[in-house]
Amino acid sequence: MQRKPGRGVAIVGAGMSKFGAFPGLATRDLFVEAFRELLASVDKGFDARDIEALYIGNFSSDLFEGQAHTAPIMADWVGLTPRPATRVEDACASSGVAFREGLIAIASGLYDIVLVGGIEKMTDLPTARVTDTLATAADVTYETPAGFTFPGLYASMATAYLHAYGATPEAFLKVGLKNHENGALNPKAQFGQRIADIIEARKASAAKKGKPIPTWADELAFLNDERANPVIAWPLRLYDCSPISDGAAALLLVSEELARRFTDAPLYVIGSGQASDGATHDRPTLTGIPAAQRAAQLAYAMAGVTSADIQLAEVHDCFTIAEIMATEDLGFFAPGEGWRAAIEGRTARTGDRPINTSGGLKSKGHPVGASGAGQVVEIWKQLRGEAGARQLPGEPCLGLTHNVGGTGQTCVVHIFERR
Amino acid sequence: MQRKPGRGVAIVGAGMSKFGAFPGLATRDLFVEAFRELLASVDKGFDARDIEALYIGNFSSDLFEGQAHTAPIMADWVGLTPRPATRVEDACASSGVAFREGLIAIASGLYDIVLVGGIEKMTDLPTARVTDTLATAADVTYETPAGFTFPGLYASMATAYLHAYGATPEAFLKVGLKNHENGALNPKAQFGQRIADIIEARKASAAKKGKPIPTWADELAFLNDERANPVIAWPLRLYDCSPISDGAAALLLVSEELARRFTDAPLYVIGSGQASDGATHDRPTLTGIPAAQRAAQLAYAMAGVTSADIQLAEVHDCFTIAEIMATEDLGFFAPGEGWRAAIEGRTARTGDRPINTSGGLKSKGHPVGASGAGQVVEIWKQLRGEAGARQLPGEPCLGLTHNVGGTGQTCVVHIFERR
Repeated sequence: MQRKPGRGVAIVGAGMSKFGAFPGLATRDLFVEAFRELLASVDKGFDARDIEALYIGNFSSDLFEGQAHTAPIMADWVGLTPRPATRVEDACASSGVAFREGLIAIASGLYDIVLVGGIEKMTDLPTARVTDTLATAADVTYETPAGFTFPGLYASMATAYLHAYGATPEAFLKVGLKNHENGALNPKAQFGQRIADIIEARKASAAKKGKPIPTWADELAFLNDERANPVIAWPLRLYDCSPISDGAAALLLVSEELARRFTDAPLYVIGSGQASDGATHDRPTLTGIPAAQRAAQLAYAMAGVTSADIQLAEVHDCFTIAEIMATEDLGFFAPGEGWRAAIEGRTARTGDRPINTSGGLKSKGHPVGASGAGQVVEIWKQLRGEAGARQLPGEPCLGLTHNVGGTGQTCVVHIFERR
Repeated sequence: MQRKPGRGVAIVGAGMSKFGAFPGLATRDLFVEAFRELLASVDKGFDARDIEALYIGNFSSDLFEGQAHTAPIMADWVGLTPRPATRVEDACASSGVAFREGLIAIASGLYDIVLVGGIEKMTDLPTARVTDTLATAADVTYETPAGFTFPGLYASMATAYLHAYGATPEAFLKVGLKNHENGALNPKAQFGQRIADIIEARKASAAKKGKPIPTWADELAFLNDERANPVIAWPLRLYDCSPISDGAAALLLVSEELARRFTDAPLYVIGSGQASDGATHDRPTLTGIPAAQRAAQLAYAMAGVTSADIQLAEVHDCFTIAEIMATEDLGFFAPGEGWRAAIEGRTARTGDRPINTSGGLKSKGHPVGASGAGQVVEIWKQLRGEAGARQLPGEPCLGLTHNVGGTGQTCVVHIFERR
């Protein structure tokens, strides 16, 4: 069903900028920051001039910065002209797809060493214009003229999900709490604050004043309070939405046979799947993402593994509902069971199916064109035992990334192995 | 120097929409038109569902139509979801680079049959906004704040060229005249009028009135008249600039060993070169495009041919000076000799080095993201003997395309052979 490419590919270096809001910096500055970290990450060192081509994932510097044609600029700023530099755009899946193009290019035999990057600088525009810009990733003929922006589109999916499975919005909140819990341990995260800290501060304050300590039900009520956690598009509230972010990430890919020249701990890319779909209004279901299901099937088939084998995953939690759907689309939980798994803590770092140990897009930040590459950076760190305070125990060796463009017009899934 | 990819690739189908201004049509409509022509062009027929992936070159539907994430929309509109659909952007070289990604993807062994497309819909915006949108392909940090738009950037190159080589603007005019001469024979051309018709009408009018018939010097004076041919950015006048256009083109690529299942007259892609460069202000020369020179060297090396072997070429004449530089960068003429060759008619259909038999971007139109793919359509027609009234004699079998992004931050060159 899914053919394997001509030869294998390994990751031998990875770097990312801090994600956040950085006035005065452009994408090129953030990319240089990511590239410098990548250079330092290559265990046995290498000469950057050996890089033969660049694939840069970028959603829309066109609209965010008035700068198109970003790939050669990135090549120039890291000193890699005249090497071929190609921008890949598939909305928020741009750098997941750029990563796949890097794989394909090495598999073709044309290159041995390829740099894959992801970049986005979103915070220069006012929020309303960012929302409008993101909405260009939906269908401007059918969706946005009907009033839809992305919070609305994902809210439709959330509403459909609640209705279909009798789920409660508490599940969404649990995803947000969990991802901020992880992001608090990630120095690159934009919002590394624990939402739980708000709750603990309230408990401490109550104890100090001799008042009854709030129960979880009290806290839920508090977090469903319009002032503490306003509705963005019902049922999605502020803590259900990923932020507007600036950031860049970079990965060094080499042909499998060269990997150990660079490091004794390469990550082998064993599965890759990509799929497309029509616009949201034109799908048979709103409770899952068909392109994600297909991309996952293709990636599993190429890797020769099943969902049960995956030990950790970075999934595309642009909204909390998206993470719950992802855990079902990827086969980690049965359809309609993802929300219960979230409530039960099964996707926490301490659960049986850790999801978004980096903090995910929700807490780490979502510079859209960089997010897919950023996911791979987390898998690189976890599988190499370099994730610091958020490191998973037990030396995991099989990880997955799941990167969605739009509401699922594009999805790309990759599977990584440390041998 | 340039490795060959793992396996060869052939073109077995090609189609394009008419290029022009089409109010009320979106890129998706134009792409469907190109795809339909492609379907009809496959000599032995095929099932479109056998297409395994799409690569779509598109400069900035983001800014032109407010629609990003265009690749899956194109897949959807030609009935090809859920196949992977990837947008490639390298400014005006977008679909030349998308074509190269198609090659690489087949060479990788992942796919056997790939659809490459190019799309752009520019005419919905007022001209000034189109100029600003195109300027996002230059460097927004260093070039556009200094007042440069693309006519200005190419005018700088034209001025440098005139100065360096003692050339005259008459050479530019000759390129425009020649390309409109060719475009008049291309039913897909946006401006298929011969500039020469203006001159002939003046001659006829003079003869009728018993006045002296204008000489070429008179005509040059007329065409250098501000009303007949206004200066856009000196020394470039109206007839030196390609138009603002809508259009789409599509190519069907298959692995070499499958080609004869589709047609007995496939075009083999024997050379591919791509290179990047920094912004215009930061180059050692303005009289040529270094990335074009390098991309050409890489393509010649892969194909095992030299510039002398090439029988026809479609080159990136966004401005007439660009065609003259291209003929030098590609090695057809020595540096500083391209302008003389243009004046001497050597690049005409009847010359020893036919360039832009389609009419080029100048006459055929320049829907920027579609132009690179459109160039390949012309080579397909010429090498198969299907170019109608503009068909070159002598059954040419080796053709070349040269597609430039920005002022040469990207360049991609391909070489095609009919065996």
